[in-house]
Order: sequence, then structure tokens, then C-alpha cells
Amino acid sequence: MATTAMSRPEARTPFYRAVGDEAEVFRAASCQGLPVLLKGPTGCGKTRFVEAMAHELGRPLITVAGHEDMTSADLVGRFLLKGGETVWVDGPLTRAVRTGGICYLDEIVEARQDTTVVIHPLADHRRELPVDRLGTTVPAAPGFQLVISYNPGYQSVLKNIKESTRQRFVAIELGFPPPEIEREVVAREAAVAPEIANALVTLGNAIRNLEGSPLREASSTRTLILAGSLVAGGLNLRAAVRAAVVQALSDDPDIVRALGELADAVLPSS
Amino acid sequence: MATTAMSRPEARTPFYRAVGDEAEVFRAASCQGLPVLLKGPTGCGKTRFVEAMAHELGRPLITVAGHEDMTSADLVGRFLLKGGETVWVDGPLTRAVRTGGICYLDEIVEARQDTTVVIHPLADHRRELPVDRLGTTVPAAPGFQLVISYNPGYQSVLKNIKESTRQRFVAIELGFPPPEIEREVVAREAAVAPEIANALVTLGNAIRNLEGSPLREASSTRTLILAGSLVAGGLNLRAAVRAAVVQALSDDPDIVRALGELADAVLPSS
Amino acid sequence: MATTAMSRPEARTPFYRAVGDEAEVFRAASCQGLPVLLKGPTGCGKTRFVEAMAHELGRPLITVAGHEDMTSADLVGRFLLKGGETVWVDGPLTRAVRTGGICYLDEIVEARQDTTVVIHPLADHRRELPVDRLGTTVPAAPGFQLVISYNPGYQSVLKNIKESTRQRFVAIELGFPPPEIEREVVAREAAVAPEIANALVTLGNAIRNLEGSPLREASSTRTLILAGSLVAGGLNLRAAVRAAVVQALSDDPDIVRALGELADAVLPSS
Amino acid sequence: MATTAMSRPEARTPFYRAVGDEAEVFRAASCQGLPVLLKGPTGCGKTRFVEAMAHELGRPLITVAGHEDMTSADLVGRFLLKGGETVWVDGPLTRAVRTGGICYLDEIVEARQDTTVVIHPLADHRRELPVDRLGTTVPAAPGFQLVISYNPGYQSVLKNIKESTRQRFVAIELGFPPPEIEREVVAREAAVAPEIANALVTLGNAIRNLEGSPLREASSTRTLILAGSLVAGGLNLRAAVRAAVVQALSDDPDIVRALGELADAVLPSS
Amino acid sequence: MATTAMSRPEARTPFYRAVGDEAEVFRAASCQGLPVLLKGPTGCGKTRFVEAMAHELGRPLITVAGHEDMTSADLVGRFLLKGGETVWVDGPLTRAVRTGGICYLDEIVEARQDTTVVIHPLADHRRELPVDRLGTTVPAAPGFQLVISYNPGYQSVLKNIKESTRQRFVAIELGFPPPEIEREVVAREAAVAPEIANALVTLGNAIRNLEGSPLREASSTRTLILAGSLVAGGLNLRAAVRAAVVQALSDDPDIVRALGELADAVLPSS
Amino acid sequence: MATTAMSRPEARTPFYRAVGDEAEVFRAASCQGLPVLLKGPTGCGKTRFVEAMAHELGRPLITVAGHEDMTSADLVGRFLLKGGETVWVDGPLTRAVRTGGICYLDEIVEARQDTTVVIHPLADHRRELPVDRLGTTVPAAPGFQLVISYNPGYQSVLKNIKESTRQRFVAIELGFPPPEIEREVVAREAAVAPEIANALVTLGNAIRNLEGSPLREASSTRTLILAGSLVAGGLNLRAAVRAAVVQALSDDPDIVRALGELADAVLPSS
Repeated sequence: MATTAMSRPEARTPFYRAVGDEAEVFRAASCQGLPVLLKGPTGCGKTRFVEAMAHELGRPLITVAGHEDMTSADLVGRFLLKGGETVWVDGPLTRAVRTGGICYLDEIVEARQDTTVVIHPLADHRRELPVDRLGTTVPAAPGFQLVISYNPGYQSVLKNIKESTRQRFVAIELGFPPPEIEREVVAREAAVAPEIANALVTLGNAIRNLEGSPLREASSTRTLILAGSLVAGGLNLRAAVRAAVVQALSDDPDIVRALGELADAVLPSS
Repeated sequence: MATTAMSRPEARTPFYRAVGDEAEVFRAASCQGLPVLLKGPTGCGKTRFVEAMAHELGRPLITVAGHEDMTSADLVGRFLLKGGETVWVDGPLTRAVRTGGICYLDEIVEARQDTTVVIHPLADHRRELPVDRLGTTVPAAPGFQLVISYNPGYQSVLKNIKESTRQRFVAIELGFPPPEIEREVVAREAAVAPEIANALVTLGNAIRNLEGSPLREASSTRTLILAGSLVAGGLNLRAAVRAAVVQALSDDPDIVRALGELADAVLPSS
Repeated sequence: MATTAMSRPEARTPFYRAVGDEAEVFRAASCQGLPVLLKGPTGCGKTRFVEAMAHELGRPLITVAGHEDMTSADLVGRFLLKGGETVWVDGPLTRAVRTGGICYLDEIVEARQDTTVVIHPLADHRRELPVDRLGTTVPAAPGFQLVISYNPGYQSVLKNIKESTRQRFVAIELGFPPPEIEREVVAREAAVAPEIANALVTLGNAIRNLEGSPLREASSTRTLILAGSLVAGGLNLRAAVRAAVVQALSDDPDIVRALGELADAVLPSS
Repeated sequence: MATTAMSRPEARTPFYRAVGDEAEVFRAASCQGLPVLLKGPTGCGKTRFVEAMAHELGRPLITVAGHEDMTSADLVGRFLLKGGETVWVDGPLTRAVRTGGICYLDEIVEARQDTTVVIHPLADHRRELPVDRLGTTVPAAPGFQLVISYNPGYQSVLKNIKESTRQRFVAIELGFPPPEIEREVVAREAAVAPEIANALVTLGNAIRNLEGSPLREASSTRTLILAGSLVAGGLNLRAAVRAAVVQALSDDPDIVRALGELADAVLPSS
Repeated sequence: MATTAMSRPEARTPFYRAVGDEAEVFRAASCQGLPVLLKGPTGCGKTRFVEAMAHELGRPLITVAGHEDMTSADLVGRFLLKGGETVWVDGPLTRAVRTGGICYLDEIVEARQDTTVVIHPLADHRRELPVDRLGTTVPAAPGFQLVISYNPGYQSVLKNIKESTRQRFVAIELGFPPPEIEREVVAREAAVAPEIANALVTLGNAIRNLEGSPLREASSTRTLILAGSLVAGGLNLRAAVRAAVVQALSDDPDIVRALGELADAVLPSS
Repeated sequence: MATTAMSRPEARTPFYRAVGDEAEVFRAASCQGLPVLLKGPTGCGKTRFVEAMAHELGRPLITVAGHEDMTSADLVGRFLLKGGETVWVDGPLTRAVRTGGICYLDEIVEARQDTTVVIHPLADHRRELPVDRLGTTVPAAPGFQLVISYNPGYQSVLKNIKESTRQRFVAIELGFPPPEIEREVVAREAAVAPEIANALVTLGNAIRNLEGSPLREASSTRTLILAGSLVAGGLNLRAAVRAAVVQALSDDPDIVRALGELADAVLPSS
């Protein structure tokens, strides 16, 4: 079962602050109809970036989250029972292909391999989607663009993007934003005062810069926003940081204690 | 097949004694509509805590126990045969989403990965559940909240909560309560006299504090209550402890004997 | 497919000779509605013990043998074809829940994990069985009790009873009975003279007391009864012991020879 | 899919020459309704022994060959399509249970574990077969007897007969017959002259007595009969031995050559 | 899905040149109705040998190629949809059994184990095929013969022919033919001049005799014929050898270069 | 689900520049009806080569991309639901067989093994496709030719082309074209000026010639064309190379930095 969300171009501009030339590369790829591969850690803003580009380019966006049980039928569609009859229901990829939207396949590497192969004819000059169950081929409407993402930080011997897939994509690497931008993002998304946002971002960078860190992932912008939201919900800053940042990063008592002491040292004594 | 239980807010207040600031964190998360992750050992009271919070917040509670064969269809729903016709039956998660209840997914890490992905759109600003089999998306009713739990003590290379899931949740760590609270809990739940409860809690803490313990899990509050219940059912204290605590903790003859000697030393000679 | 047997309380009292306080513990658990976990080696009388307790307590008994392909549907029920129509057929667990009987799940650890989870709501204060395929929940009738068993002697890395399951159960450990009781059991079950029973039990204990024994399991009471039955069927004692005890315990020629010599030394020269 | 063969008691007595007390043990077990486990190498005559006993006891014999894909449905039965309708077709075990025949499950250890469990209630005092798909239980007709076999020479970590299964059976070990009996068997079965049979049996025993033999299995009585049949079909003895014995025992060129030289030395120069 | 081909006895005699006494052994086995096991490397002529014997004996030949997904249903048959109705379609083995043909199961070791078991009753004195899905047993028509093959050169821990299967078969080992015969075969099959065939066979034997060869398989007669066919199609000899022999044997640049140099040294400078 | 594309011979000649004698070998194989195996790295032009040969030979081309879930039904066809009825739909291989086209199975090694077996009767003198589900055999129309490809650079213990498959095919090895040809290809395909193409090819060869390269695959012609397309889409050369070449080749920060420095050194300062 695929987890999908389709959105028409929003009236409100999605909030995204570019850090490098990611928007220029995306525009050039879009102009040439080339598929894009986004690389970056959890919670650094990949989804927001795609939302912002879809808005700027005026195209519908369809998001699909990959997982290890996902097959090509989850993308392309299947016959479903509706009122006693079997009717064909387009999958999210097929809907994007027909409507000329942007189809964003998040962490597609997790999916079963037949899904990566189904996107090949969409990712080269053919720009068409074979729908074997219907015995037809759907040409991509103008404006259709494929975007996929993965997190290079996950170590996996079993799940690797195939070279023959990867070399079809223009690659853009995203990371956490620099402090001045991250402060603005946290303050805005969590609806907290600038000094709270400042404290959270200072802590986030202190954790990211820990030498010889035993953490699998660093504290993402997303966890900083979560901590800010708890503050906005009435919790004090230290309890919010403990719940949204410290306890989220590790289960090891020693690491949790060390992160707690770091938070005590960095956060204002309020 | 999912194991689910749905309960309307009870007239009687569920018995739960808070140990730290877990209730404040839960309230702030609930106020902001943020999902919660509970961490803690078997039998420490995670379920009771959620029941108490659901009661305080006046919301229905739906509990689902995860297991390694559980798929997203167990959460979302499926077509079933009823009287010769196929009818759609909402899964427990969908019911919680429609009614604005709290959905508590116990040990969700055990489930197949497609279940963790299906909860992502419910665990961020989208707050919606895609039901692919019906071709629709169900927006979460006001009051819907997602709570998941897992036991960090289980060592598992294969089953880990994904970072991209984990960083969406506010995390609360629960442990065994301090002696004065645990005595009250055991006496009340097992309906035994205070001195019996006192003896059981003293034993429980003696076992938990064993140095270099070879036990996978310590004696939980739940096993102490079980021992108390046997006493309330007419068994003498030592036989009750042997059946509900000692034999439950290990199959190794040496460890069973050592635990028995510890129980002899700690329990009153009655 | 589940292997089940349901029996109404028998007119004749099943033959079981208690060795320790197992009956008292079972009665107290039964009085409090607590589930019971039986631990012990193959053929030591676990099933007989449950039969005797069911008889004493006046409740129907349903026995289910676990195996590695058993799923929760084997316990709960499924839709079957009968005369061209699909009809729901309760599984053995559901039948026990409805009738207030004792459901004995033998070696449930072998079954797939979803079966252990399906019994959780029956093994705590909820006492109810969710039947997802029917979209209903069946409350346990008064008198329903869950009994499970496993053999701690089997070494298995893959199959372990989960702590969160185990700590819900009152545990009773059973072993082989002492000689005077075992003699009575063998004589009665195999319908042989006391001196034959005596010889068999003497041999059984000689094998169990072998130092540094390479056998995976010792000679159980069951194998001694089997040998006695062969004698009752006309075979001489030594041939009966060779067929029912020696050859049943090992395929290794050296061990078979050693066990044969031990039998020659212990058994009367007839 | 199960491979089965059912035979009414034959008019002609099947040819079997007893070597030890295997017939007495079988008769005593049969008299008491006890199940039998046959142990022995490939091609030593296990099937013939069962055929002979079935004939002597005047009971129908049903043979089922186990394999790693065999499930309990292959033994018990299933619904099949016949002329557009689904009808229940008894499996071979169910047929034997209904007719009071001997059911011989050859190498049942290979089958999936649910098959060994399905035979438990038939292998103890219950003597009944639960047929879950029909929702019924079939009591064993008088005369029904279960016989299983396996080859202890196969080393398998994965496939072992469970102790709780094994200790339900009376065990009989069979081996290759002594030379004087094996000569008679080969001469009769292959329809060759005594001196040919003598040469083949001499060779067979020379191979079996090879010290430090690298062969997984020795040359069985079956392969000696096969070689005899080729001679009866017109091939010379040495070519027959090469095709039916030497090439059947190994693919290793060195071993094949050594066995060939052994054959040259042992066989008459004809 | 099984890959099968059925051929009536051809008018034209298939071209096969016997190397040893393989034809005599096959005739004796055929005369006695005994099954045959062919051993030998890829492309040495196993299929041709069976075709030639089937022609000589005047029987239809059905060939089935084994693979790791092949099940007994692929051999025996299944119900298929035809014009909206389900009709039974005999598998290739069943067709051979009914028509009294030779059924050649190529590399049957690759198939799932239930296929090897299904052939047991056809490979001994019973000579019958149980068709469980139809609930019937098909007796083998006179003339039916089972032939299986495998390649001992493939090292496989997982896939081994079971001893209880193997010892039912008369075994014939085939290898590459001696040069004078192989030259004739290549010239005839590829329709090339004798000197081309001579050059190819010389090269083939030079490769087969490489000491310490790192090749998994040597250059088979089949690859020499393929090279000859390219020459007959207009390619020069060296390019043909490079494409059909050198590049077919290895992907390792060093080995490819070494084989190329060997070819340059052995082949006429044309 | 198979990913297929069928194309009638194009009016426009597909652009392909031969590097060695690959076209001659292909023509000879085609003339003789022999199957072809293409070996070479990702993005070196295997598909283009087949397109060009199909055009030159005037035959329709059907392309199928292999993946690890692909089964023989994906190639041969299956019954599908259309308007409530089940109709047979030919798979891509069957369509090619009927129409006498070229069927190009890209990376067929990835597919399940039953797919490689299904092509055997098409890859030798039989030239026919058994369609078991229909119970028929389809003879290959004149002109039918099988072409398969794989990438020897992928190290895989699990997935190897079987020798018995491989030795049926004429093998052609393709590599990256020499600079003067690659420049022409890049300029033409990406529609960039010769100096841009020259810079890209120079960089590509510098990367390919890195000593002790840690890259799994080198920069293919395809990635150079991709970079060129970004330039044609308005991006500057260095950003285009970073997105299409550097970030596509590695996720390792050190390698990405080293490749970036190499690009800075090789590319014109623009």
C-alpha cells in the first residue's frame, strides 16, 4: 500500500529558504524534463524543497513514501473492488504521469526492485509508463517530472540504488541550513520567539558538532521545530528539549545523560 | 490480524500514579496535536499511562498490539465477507482517525515496515490517512492523536524504528515507579494487604538491583501484581512468588534456585 | 491447520498423581482468572495434569498443538467452504472463549508470532478476544482460562516466548515424578504387573542419572509406558525396552549400544 | 502434492526376509495399536517390510512419500475442482484413518512441521484425526496404524524429528541383510542366476566395508538389484555394475575410478 | 512454468555419435523399464543422445527443463482457464506417462523437491503417477521411460539429488567426444568445411587442457558449433571464435586476453 | 510486472557510432538466427546499439527490463481482467516471437530463474516458445531474434547467468567509445557546442583513468550527456557537472570533494 498525497499548487507560497544553488539546478532539470535525485539526512527539508519548487513551477505535486513492501502496483495502480465490481484505480505515479505533475518518490530505495525498474522508461527520453495490467502505455503529459530521494547516511548492504537507475538522474545534495536560516525556519514553523529558536538552533549545532558522536543521525531541523512546538504548547524549554531532542536521539542511558548535560550547558537557565 | 480494543472514556478514573513530568509532556503534545513515543520496559505501566491520559483528556482510546506479521491493512482496514457480500471494514487506526480518538500502537516496531510508513502522514502537519484500497484520504478528526511504544531493552538488529519515523515523535521514557508508589499500585491492583505489597516490592527491587544480572528483563510491576493476586486467591506468599516471579523470570535451574534463595531471604517468614 | 481436541468433563476422573504444589497454584490462578504457563520436558505429564485440573474444576478442555506454520487464524477461526457457501467456523480458542472452557495451547512458542499476540487481551484484565475477520470482539465467558506450555530444554535462538507475553502468566514447572509415583503411573497406564513397572522405572532413572549424557531428552514417563504396553502386547521385556526406549532415544550406534548394555545390567534377566 | 499409493492386501505374499525380531516388535505394536518408527538407510527394504507386515496382518496399506513442500493438507485432504464444483477429497492419511488401514509416511521428517503435528492425536490414546477444513474429527477405524520412517544417516541441522513426536513411536532399526539373505533377495528380485547375485552381494559388502569411506551412502540392496536387472536385460556384468552401482554412488572421478578397480578385483572375470 | 517440447519419432535419424557403451546401457535399461540418470557438462550432447535413443527405440520424446521455481504441478498438470471454464491440462510428465513416451527431465536437481518425489513411484516397480488434484493415479503405458540429467560440475550445497532418488536410477556419464568425433559433429552441425571444424576442435581441446584453469566450465561442443555457425554466416574465424568461445567463457579481462592469445596461437592465420 | 517498449522500425535512423566489429558479429548472428548476449557497463550504449541494428535489419524491437521480481509470466503473458472478463494478454516475448521482431531482455540476470529457462527453446535450434498457461507452443516467426544483456561489473554471488544459458549465446562486449566518437555523441544527444562536449568527454576520461578508483561504476556516456543537457537548459558547466556527474557517482564526502577538484582542474574556467 502506498502512502500518497496530492496537492494542487497552493495559493500560499510554501516556506523554503534556499541554501545553495539547489533551485537553479532543479529549474534547469525541469526545463529539460530531466529526473532529479535528492540526497540528504532525515528532516533537513527535502520535502519542503520539492513543495516549494512545485509551487514556483505551478505544477501539482504527488508524494509517495517508499517502504520495503512497496511494489510497482502501488505506484502504477491496481484493480479494486468498488460496490461489487472490480474497477481500475490509477496509482499515484500514473496520476502524475497523466496530469503532468511532479511525482516525488520519497526513500524509493526501500521499495522492492520492480518499482525502480518501472520508472526507467519515465526517466529517459521515452517518457512513458507501461501499464501491463491494462495492456497499455501512458505517455507522460508535458510538465511531468520525476523526483526521488534517499538518505546516504543509512548504511545498507541490501538496499542500494542501482547504478543503472542512479545515472539517469540529476543529483542534488541537501544538508541542514546554516544557523541564521535555521533560526528563521524554527521560529516560523514552531511559532516561537526568536530567542527560543536561537537557543534550539545553538543546541542543534552543538549536537551536530560533537566529536566522535555515537548517534546514527544528528538532531534535525525537524526535531528542533518539534521542541519549539512543545514550548508553544506550554511546556518549559528544558522539558521540551528532553522530549523532542534528547530522548528522540538515543535510548542509551549514558548518551541520554550526556546529551542532557550538553542541553543544560547550552540552553539559557530560563 | 490486529489485536485491538476500543474504549469510550470511562466513568471511573483509571488508576495511574505519575512518577515524573510525563503527564505535562503528554498534555503539551496533545495540545499541539503532536504524536508521542513511549519508551520503557515490559510491565512498567505504559498502557495504564495512556489510559489515564485518554480519560483526563476525554477521548476514546484504541489500542493495537504490534507483531511481526502485522501489515498496514491490519491498521487501515480491508474488505471482508459478510453474509456473502464483501464489505469494507475500517481498521483500528482508521476508526481512531474518523472519531478523533487516541490510537495507541503498542510495540509497533514489531510490525512490517509498511505500517510505520502508513502513519507518517498522520504524524506530521498533514494529519491525514490515505486509504488506497478505497482510493480516498481520510482527514484526522480534531482530537486524533497517535501514540506508539517500544521497549529499548529488546536487542534487535533487524527491528529498529526508522530515524525518519522516530524524529516525528515527542519521546517520553517510563520506568518502574519508586517503591512508595509501586507499593500503592500493587496493593490496589492485586487487592492485598499493605504488608504483602510491601514484601513484594522489596523483593522486586532486590531483583532489579542484582549486580551482573543474567536476566533479560527484571521483575516488572506486572509480575508483582500477579503474585499478589495469587495470594488474594488463597496461595501462600512464597508459592505465589515462586509461580509469578521466580519461574516467570528464568528457566535456568541455577538462576531459579538463586532467585528462590533471594526470595527466602527477603520475604517475611510468615 | 490446527490440531485440536475438545472434551466435555469426563465422568471418569483422569488419572494424575500430583508431585508438588502444582494443583494448589493452578487452583489459585483459576480462582483469580489468571492464565497459566506450564514448563517441563516431553512426556512428563503436562497434558494429563491439565486434563485432571479441568476435570476437578468441571470445565470443558480444548487442546491445541502449536507448530511453526500455525497462525492466529488457526486459533480464532476462518471462513470455510461448506456446500458451496462460505461460512464462518470458530477456531478452538474462540470456542473455548465462548463456552468458558480451558484452552490449552501446547508448545505455543512454535507458532507464528501473531498467535502469541492474539492471546494478550485474553491474558490480562480485558479477558476478550478480538475477531477481526468478523469485526467483533468476543468477551470470555466465566470460567474461561488460558493454559500454555513449552519445553525449556529445547534450545532455540529463533523461537523464544516474548517477555511481554511471559510476564502475563503464572508459571508452573513440572518434571518427571519420583520413582514411587512413576511406578504406579506406568503400571496403571500400560496395564503391566508391578515388577515390570518397577524394572522400567529403575531403568528410566538410571538413564536420567547418566553423567555427561549426550541425549537431547531423557527417557520420559511416556516411553516407559510405551515399553510396558509392548510387554502387555506379548513382547519380552528386553525387546520392548530396545524398541520403545533405547532406539527412541538415539540413532548413534555407540550410544545405542551403551544404552543397551545399561538396560541389560538394570533389567531382571527375566 | 502428496505421492501416494494404496493397495488392498495382495493375494501374493510380498517377498520379505526378516533379519532380526523386527516382525515380532511390529506385531506387538500392531496388537496394542501403537505407532511405529522405522529407521534405516536408503534401499535397505523398509517399504518391503511394511508391505509384508500389512499383508500378514490383512490390512490395506497407504504409502506417502514426504518432501520439503508437503503440508498437512497433502495428508488430510483439500477441496478440489471437479466439473466446475468444489468437492472435498480425502488425503491419504484420512483415507487410512477411515478404512482402518496402515498409513506409511516415508521420510516424513522432510515434510513441513504442521504434518508431524497433525499426526500427534493419531499417535497417542486419542486415535483421532481433526479435519479443520471440514470442522470435524475423524475417529480412527479399528486396525488403523501409523508407520513412519526416516534415514538417520542424513545429517541435517534443520530437519530433525521432534522429541515430542519421536517419543510417541515404537522404534525399529533396519539395516542391510546379511550376505546369505541378500543373495536370495537379489537373485529373486532381479531374476538373475545365483552366481550373479553372489558376485553382486560380494561387491556390495566390499564397498560397505571400505575403511574411511567418503561415500554419503553405501551401495544399497536396491542398487544391487538394479545391476542385476541390467544383466537380465542383456548387459554384461561389469558394465551393469558401473552403471547401477559405481556411477550411482559418486561423481568424483577419483572415487569412481577406485570403485571401478574394486569392482574389477571382486567380480569374476566372466 | 515448465518448458517442454514433445516430438514424435522423427523420420530423419538424429545425428549422434556414440563414444562409449552409453547406447548399450540405455538399451538394457529401456528393455527392463529402468529409469536413467545422465551425468555430464553443459553442451556435451546429453539432449542429442536422448533424441537419438528415442528415435532408435521408436518412442515419442518429451523434454522438460528444470529450474528453481519448478514445482510438481509444472510436471503433472493443473487446471487452466480456457474460454471462461477451468479445464485440466496434463503436464508434460503426465502426457509421457499416458502415451508411453520417454520423458527427459533436464537438470531436474534445480527444481523444487516435490518434483523429485513425484517421480519416485514412476522410478520403481510401481510405474504409476499419482495425480492428486484429480484424485486419480495414472499407470504408465508400456514404453514409458524416465530420463533425468544433471551436471556434476556445478558445485551446490543447497541443490543435491537425494540419495533415495539417485539410487533408483541407472547412471550414465557423458563427456566431450574425442577429437575425431567432435570434428565430424562440428562440421555437420555448423555446416562448415572440415578445416574450420578441425581448427575449432583443436582450440576447444587446448582450452580444456589448460592447467589450473580458472574457468567454471570448459568450451563445450555447443560453443564450437556456435563459432562455426558464425563463420557459415559470413564472419571471419577469429571474430567468430572471440564472440562464440572467448567472450562466452569469461568476463575477466585477463582471462579473455589469455584465451584470445591462445586462440591466435592455435587458429590458422587464415 | 515487466517494463516493455515496442517500436516499429523508425523512419529516422537511430544514432549509433560503431566502435569495433560489433555490427558485423550481430549481422552474422542475425543471419544465422543465433541469439546474442551483450556485455558492458551502465550507460555505454547497449540499448542504442540494439536500436540501430533493429533499424538496419528492418525489424520491430521489443525491450524488456529485468528485475528481481520478474517471472516468466511477465515475459510470456497472463490472463488479465478486462471489462469483467478474463482475457489472455501476450507478454512482450510472445509478441516478439509472433511478429518476428527482436526481443531485447535488458539485465535479464536479475530476473527469477524461470525466465532464463523459458528462453532456452528460443535460443537453440527449436526456436519455439511453450505457453503452458494456454497449453500451446508458439513457433518463432522468421526474423525473431533474442538479445540479452548484462553488466559484468556488478559483483553478485547470487545472480549469475547459468552456463547452460550463456553457452547458447554469441557474446559481444561493448565499452565506452573512444574520445573522438564520444565527443560527437555527447554534442549531438545533449545539443551542446563542441567545446562543451569536448570538456565533458575530457573529464569523463580523467575520471575513468583514476588509479585505484573507489567508484563502483565510472562516469558513463549517459552522465556526460545529462550534464550537457543541464548546460543546454541554462545551468553553468561546473554546476551541471557537479549535479549530473560528481553527485551521481558517489555519496562519500571525500570522494565527492576529490571529484570536484578533478572537475575544477579539467574543465575550462569558463
